Order: sequence, then structure tokens, then C-alpha cells
Amino acid sequence: MVKKSDGKRKISESTIKRLSLYYRALSLLEKENQETISSKELARREKLTPAQVRKDLSFFGSFGTRGLGYPVSELKQQISEILGVNRVWNVAMVGVGNIGSALVSYKEFQKQGFIIKLIFDNDQRKIGSNHKGLIVSDIREMARLLREHHIEIVILAVPAIVAQYIVDEVVAAGIKAILNFAPINLQVPPDVYLRTENMSMELEYLSFTLTNRRPPAE
Amino acid sequence: MVKKSDGKRKISESTIKRLSLYYRALSLLEKENQETISSKELARREKLTPAQVRKDLSFFGSFGTRGLGYPVSELKQQISEILGVNRVWNVAMVGVGNIGSALVSYKEFQKQGFIIKLIFDNDQRKIGSNHKGLIVSDIREMARLLREHHIEIVILAVPAIVAQYIVDEVVAAGIKAILNFAPINLQVPPDVYLRTENMSMELEYLSFTLTNRRPPAE
Repeated sequence: MVKKSDGKRKISESTIKRLSLYYRALSLLEKENQETISSKELARREKLTPAQVRKDLSFFGSFGTRGLGYPVSELKQQISEILGVNRVWNVAMVGVGNIGSALVSYKEFQKQGFIIKLIFDNDQRKIGSNHKGLIVSDIREMARLLREHHIEIVILAVPAIVAQYIVDEVVAAGIKAILNFAPINLQVPPDVYLRTENMSMELEYLSFTLTNRRPPAE
Repeated sequence: MVKKSDGKRKISESTIKRLSLYYRALSLLEKENQETISSKELARREKLTPAQVRKDLSFFGSFGTRGLGYPVSELKQQISEILGVNRVWNVAMVGVGNIGSALVSYKEFQKQGFIIKLIFDNDQRKIGSNHKGLIVSDIREMARLLREHHIEIVILAVPAIVAQYIVDEVVAAGIKAILNFAPINLQVPPDVYLRTENMSMELEYLSFTLTNRRPPAE
């Protein structure tokens, strides 16, 4: 398990992404009743080097046994604790336009323990309506409802023009983790973790590689 | 402008992301008729250091004038050439479930020149139906239609279980750039650029930070 007390132990963003990948691979292997996996096999599945896999896992105190590899269930459990996915997280979706609405139905969230408990919109035609089993709440009730339902993570899927205003309200309600889909850089206090997903920037990465006929450097 | 002949000049993924941010900021400034911008102001807007901004831009041969800053329109034009967004790209969407369907309506794509020309599905109830102005084509017609419509980028929004099979067909049709939303690591040949967007991994990044009460290292 990661030593939480060790503030100097740095985990990079790319390490977390790899842990998420290992976690998925191990979940699948567990379902297939595979008991152990070698760093070589895990590396092959995730298109990494065995050295990288061993480095990542030794970092968390997990060591494979020579000739046997890593114990699948135990390693999966360890990684789930590090990632915080060994529990359920209460999530709220703010904005049920095209993207928000699609994400409410995105099965992967629930599968990984991210449960959308509340959905908000400011559109009077949507408020009160049933949306994939959830009633759309009035965004003016947001602060109170976020607290009452112990929401810990907010997904923002609102137009860019109102996103800063809404994120300020989300922060004021005490939320510390926000996943933003509005195509804009939002300002949050240092104790709030914000991730911005910009899907057109992903396409620009591809148009860059097509234009320059090469992927960017690592 | 980036020297395309210089294969040794490495541009990192994070540099491309920053260029996308500068491009958006400059587009907005241009609309507001602002003629120049200092590295300091651009840095403040994007929450970067002025030194980082100057470094990124000098890398592409752009130098601000002391006291005046960078010329907004010219810099925007240069960055658009580097990113390949100074032109239109023909895009196809494969899969019109929740996510695919939402992305077809995602206005940012079109705004940045990524035009969805074709949409595919294998569901007989969807094929032939009008979906936000586009007719859903039969996925069995994909190879021929991708070629006929000169599609350069494919967005995959299909279930994980069929994603590798479909990406193989997309690659066989000659497509070199793919944005994948299926939550799975896909295999493509080295000359094909693949980006995988995994939205639940973004939430895992947040659950990691909430669990460990710190963001990952840079």
C-alpha cells in the first residue's frame, strides 16, 4: 500500500494512468480466474516494458515472485486502495446537455464505483424531469443538495460561458474534486483538484501528428 | 513556423496541449480586437509562468517585442499551422450510442475545423436514420465510405468488446489517426496515431487525489 505519511514520495500523473490500466487488466484477469501474472505479460498487455511495470509496482511495495509473478487479486486490491476505487464515490453531474446526458449513461463510471447521485440543470423544461432514473434538480438548489447528498466529486458539463460562475458555486459548496468538460481553463483554489477534459484538444493532437507526420516526444 | 524538416526537434505532448490553449486564448483576443499580448498576460490567462510561455513560443520561432508583446493574429496563425487547424479535417464517427451521439453534437469539433462527415453503426434500427443531419451508415460499408469521403480521422465510440475488431477495419481502410473512447487499450501499427480517452480514468485521477490528499507530481 502507498505510504500516505510519506509526503516526499512523488507519484506522477503518468504513473496514475498506468495504475488505472493495471487495475483494469487485473480485474479482467481475476474474472478469468488467473491467479498470477508476470511483469512481462502485464507489460505486453499494456504495451509497456517489463522494467516499467516492475518499477511502478515496486514503488508501491509490490514485488513479484521469480517464476510465479504477481498475485492477481492481491495486486488488484493494493492498486484499488492507492487509486481510491476500493470504495464508492458520490458524484453529481452539472449540466444535462449532450455531453452531460451521455455521461450520465456512461456505464464505466458506475462500474468503477463513481455513482452519479444528482443531476442539475438551469433549463426549466428539464428540471423535474426523469433522466435515466434520476430527477433533474434546479441548479439553484445545488449548494444545499450537494451537501445533503454528501457529494464528493462534481462533473461539469455546462457551456464555457457560464462554467467559471458555476465552478465557483461548486467550490463554495465545499467540493474538492471537479472533472470539467467545458472547453475553458477554470480557476479554482489550490485545495481543489480540477481536471479539464477537452475533446477537441485530443483531435488537435491528432491533427498535429498528421500535419507533422510524427507523434510528439514522450 | 515549425521546421518540419528537422526531425530532431522534439515537441512534447504537454507542449501541444499548451499550444492548443494558446490558440484558444489568441482566438478570443482576436475577436476582442486586441492586437498584441505579453507573455505575462498569456501566462496569467493560462495559469503558466511567463518563462514557460516564452520558451514554448521561441521554440516555434516566435519572439515578442519588448514592451509590445506578441502580435495576436500572427501568432494565432502560426500556432494554427503547427497544430494543423488552419484547415478542415474530414472525420467519421463509428458508433452512435450515448457517447458517439453526444460527440456528433459537440460544437467544439466543428468550431476547430473537425467536420463529422459520416456516422456508422451496426444496429439495424439506427442504420438509415437521420441523426443530427447525418444519415447513419451501415458499418459493413465503412471501408468503402471512408475512402470515398476522404476521411482522415476516425472517432471510435463503440463497446470495448468489439473495439479491436473495428479498429483493425479502420486501419485496413487506410486511416492514420484515431480517437478512441472505448475503455480498452487498442493495438494499431506504428504508423497509425491512436489516442484513447478514458473518462473513468479521469475520475480515478480525482479519487487518487482525494484519497491521498495531494495531486500527483508533475
